Amino acid sequence: MLSDSTPADWIRQLEALWNEGIPLAGAMAVEIRRLDSEFITLAAPLAPNRNHMGSAFGGSLQSLATLAGWGVTLIAAGRASGHVVIRTSQMKFLTPVAGELVAEAPLPASGATAAFRGALAARGHARLTVPVAILGPSRRVAARFVGEFVASVADR
Amino acid sequence: MLSDSTPADWIRQLEALWNEGIPLAGAMAVEIRRLDSEFITLAAPLAPNRNHMGSAFGGSLQSLATLAGWGVTLIAAGRASGHVVIRTSQMKFLTPVAGELVAEAPLPASGATAAFRGALAARGHARLTVPVAILGPSRRVAARFVGEFVASVADR
Repeated sequence: MLSDSTPADWIRQLEALWNEGIPLAGAMAVEIRRLDSEFITLAAPLAPNRNHMGSAFGGSLQSLATLAGWGVTLIAAGRASGHVVIRTSQMKFLTPVAGELVAEAPLPASGATAAFRGALAARGHARLTVPVAILGPSRRVAARFVGEFVASVADR
Repeated sequence: MLSDSTPADWIRQLEALWNEGIPLAGAMAVEIRRLDSEFITLAAPLAPNRNHMGSAFGGSLQSLATLAGWGVTLIAAGRASGHVVIRTSQMKFLTPVAGELVAEAPLPASGATAAFRGALAARGHARLTVPVAILGPSRRVAARFVGEFVASVADR
């Protein structure tokens, strides 16, 4: 659920946030490939994210998935200026990624978003669990990530 | 257990591997702070690894811990040229890291190293679970990582 802002607004805001505030996202050359009411998809080229064996570095995959989950949490919270931290992460690496790195995460449905925003308004913080898939050629899942993110209202 | 090579040899070999083969390690400015028969300690400055809130980016912490676990697995395998991939990772983020990023991982004891090398020699591959601690000021644990790494003999 995207609500308020349009996808183009969100893409601008998130990419600005990463470009200005997270140097590693710049070093990885992360971009938002797609954002609609159901999914956010991030992509990064292999070259700056390769390991010495020519496939994607596991740290880059964890970082890309973390940015995806973070983006989902900000969108669920309803504003890009929100305060979001990661609490836990888990990742299973199934097959090496030999080309572009792609991470796709579902946005929570409208009911889950409403509950998340309700908790955020009532308690000043709320927790969201975000699954992220790393996709290889033909959208085959190359790795699975699950992150727990906590959003909080900065001025409380 | 370090066996064959000296700590200085290992530091040179691992840093060369990361500098030449893993651009993200360069972007993060990772260095091996300490290596002895019991621990490997990696460090990276906050500036290239910060997030928009001024603390360490979760992706950088996962990447640093992954490099530490990877280093431990190569050392356990006995050669820096070995083939090592990460299979699973888990991380708990306890407190924000507001300064230098430090990751410390124990090297397996001599018995565990012998078993790991025996499996590697017998089957051509062997699995190692490596715990990594992210340390803050006064060596307080700021995050905990556990990674499962698989080493394999490249020429089999």
